[in-house]
Amino acid sequence: MALERELAALHAKEAALVFTSGYVANETTLQTLGAMLPGCEIYSDAFNHASMIAGIRHSGAVRKIFRHNDLAHLEQLLAAADPKTPKIVAFESVYSMDGDISPIGEICELAHRYGALAYLDEVHAVGMYGLRGAGVAERDGALDKVDIVQGTLAKAFGVVGGYIASTEATIDFVRSCGSGFIFSTSMPPAIAAAALASIRYVSAHSELRVRHQERAATLKRRLAAAGLPVMPSVTHIVPVSVGDAALCKQASDLLMDRHSIYVQPINYPTVPRGTERLRLTPTPLHSDDDMARLVAALQDVWQTLGLGLRAAAE
Amino acid sequence: MALERELAALHAKEAALVFTSGYVANETTLQTLGAMLPGCEIYSDAFNHASMIAGIRHSGAVRKIFRHNDLAHLEQLLAAADPKTPKIVAFESVYSMDGDISPIGEICELAHRYGALAYLDEVHAVGMYGLRGAGVAERDGALDKVDIVQGTLAKAFGVVGGYIASTEATIDFVRSCGSGFIFSTSMPPAIAAAALASIRYVSAHSELRVRHQERAATLKRRLAAAGLPVMPSVTHIVPVSVGDAALCKQASDLLMDRHSIYVQPINYPTVPRGTERLRLTPTPLHSDDDMARLVAALQDVWQTLGLGLRAAAE
Repeated sequence: MALERELAALHAKEAALVFTSGYVANETTLQTLGAMLPGCEIYSDAFNHASMIAGIRHSGAVRKIFRHNDLAHLEQLLAAADPKTPKIVAFESVYSMDGDISPIGEICELAHRYGALAYLDEVHAVGMYGLRGAGVAERDGALDKVDIVQGTLAKAFGVVGGYIASTEATIDFVRSCGSGFIFSTSMPPAIAAAALASIRYVSAHSELRVRHQERAATLKRRLAAAGLPVMPSVTHIVPVSVGDAALCKQASDLLMDRHSIYVQPINYPTVPRGTERLRLTPTPLHSDDDMARLVAALQDVWQTLGLGLRAAAE
Repeated sequence: MALERELAALHAKEAALVFTSGYVANETTLQTLGAMLPGCEIYSDAFNHASMIAGIRHSGAVRKIFRHNDLAHLEQLLAAADPKTPKIVAFESVYSMDGDISPIGEICELAHRYGALAYLDEVHAVGMYGLRGAGVAERDGALDKVDIVQGTLAKAFGVVGGYIASTEATIDFVRSCGSGFIFSTSMPPAIAAAALASIRYVSAHSELRVRHQERAATLKRRLAAAGLPVMPSVTHIVPVSVGDAALCKQASDLLMDRHSIYVQPINYPTVPRGTERLRLTPTPLHSDDDMARLVAALQDVWQTLGLGLRAAAE
C-alpha cells in the first residue's frame, strides 16, 4: 500500500510492513525470525527495549546479551559462536531512557563480518534525525548497512502504528509467518492516510529537526544553569536524575499537582534501581517561556523534596 | 479517560483499559494474569484465537484445552484439578471462522463453580450483538457473569485499538504489570475521540444491528438457493466451504481478478486442513444488488474451478 511504499523509500529499503504498534513490530519480527531461522542466535544490547526482549524471549532463540554499546564485548561473543549458525544483532539508535546513541555503522559492520543480520530500532529517531527524518542511520550515512529497520508512526509522526523496512524477501517472510501481524486487524484507511501525510510533511520540513535540536540544547543549558542534575545526553531526550523511586514519584506528583506539568517518573524496571529519573522531551514547539516555567517548577520541587541542587556554575 | 469510562459502562464493569489492538489486549492480559497468579491454570477453548493462545503460551501457566464449546469436557478438566490453584477459563462469544456462538452464561457458571475467572473475547460481537451493542453477553443476559471481557475498536466500531473491561482491581493490575501495555505508546487523542464517538453512535443505533442480522440471513438464503455450499452459522459470519487450500486460493484470486470482489481465502493454520473456506461478512450497508452480484460471481468461480454445486433446493 502507499504507506508501506513511503516507509520503504524513507529508509532506502525494498519493502516495508505496517503493524498495529512499534511494540508489535519489534515483538513479532524478532519472534518470527528467531523461531523460524534454524538454530538462530540473537545478540541483544543490554539496554534494548522491552518489546525486543519480548520478541527474543518468545522466539525461543539463543539470546546473548552484550554490554550496552560495547563493540568489543559484542565481537567477543560473536567470535566465540559457531560461524554456521544464523545470527541477528538487535540494537537501537537512540536509547530512550538515557538519550545516548549507538555507533550504527560500526555495529552493522561487525555484525556482517560474523555473518549476522543487523536489526535496528529507530523508534526514538524516525522523523527526528537525518536530513529527511529517516533516523540516525540516515544522519550517520549508514542506511544501507542496516538489514532490518524498525520504527513507529506514533511518536514524531504523531499518528499510531509501527513498522519494519527491509528486503522484499524478509518483509514477505514476516508478513507470511508473523502471528502478531496475521491475526490482527489492519490499519483503517483514514489512519493510513494520516500517517502518510504526516511522514511526507515531517520528512520535507527539516527545519523542524533543526529547531528540535536547538530546543533540547537550550533546555539542557537552562537546567544546568539552574543547578538541576541534568544527565549527559546527545539527543532530544533530557533525563534529570533523582536516584530514588519514592522521591521520583513524589517529584512527578508535585509537578502535576502544584504546577500542572506532567512528567512521568522513570523507575525500575524501566531503568536500574538507583538511577531513577524524570525524563524531559522538548518538542520544536516548546517556547522559551515554557522552559522558564518548567525550570522554575523543577527548582521548587527540588527544594520542597530536599533534593540536591548543584552549584549553578557546575 | 473518557473512552475507558465509556467502555466500562458499555460492558457494565467498573473499569476498562485500552490497548493498541485486540490482539495486544488478549496477549497482554492473559500473559500477565497467567504469569502473576501463582500456579495459575488456564482452560482454553480449542478454537480460541491466536492472540489468546500467544498470551497463554507466553505466560508460562499450565494450559488445558477443552473441546470447542464442550461444557462436559470443560467440567471434567476443572473437576480433576486442585481446587486451590488459581484458574481462568478463556473463550470467545462469536467464533470468527465458523460463525457459531458459545453458551456464555453456562460456561461462566461452570467456571465460577470451580473457582475460576471467566475471560471472554467478544471481538466479533461488540457493536453487533445486544441491545446497546455490548456483545453476545448482553444479548444473553450474561454481562454480570463475565469477569473479564475483551473487545476491539477496529471491527464494528471501525477505528483502531483493543480493550478489556473488568473490576477496578483487575484493570489496575494489568495496567501496572502488563508489558504490552506499559511499553507501548498510548492512543493519540484524535483517535480516542473517534472511537468514543463511534461507540456512542453504534450503541445508540440498534436498528443497525437488526439490519445486520437481516442482511446476513438474506445472504445465507441466497447462497443456499444458488446451490453454493454455505456452512451452518448462527451469526453474521457466512463461511462457504471449499475444502482444499489451493482451490480456496484460486477461488479468491478469480473473485478478485474477474469480478473485482475481495474475499480472503481461509486456509490452515487458521482452520483445520480439509475445511478450507471463503468467509463472507455482510454489513448492514450491503444492498440486494451487491448480494446478487456476489452470488453470481461465486457461481461463476465454482463452475470455472469445477467445484460442486448443490441442488438448489437442498
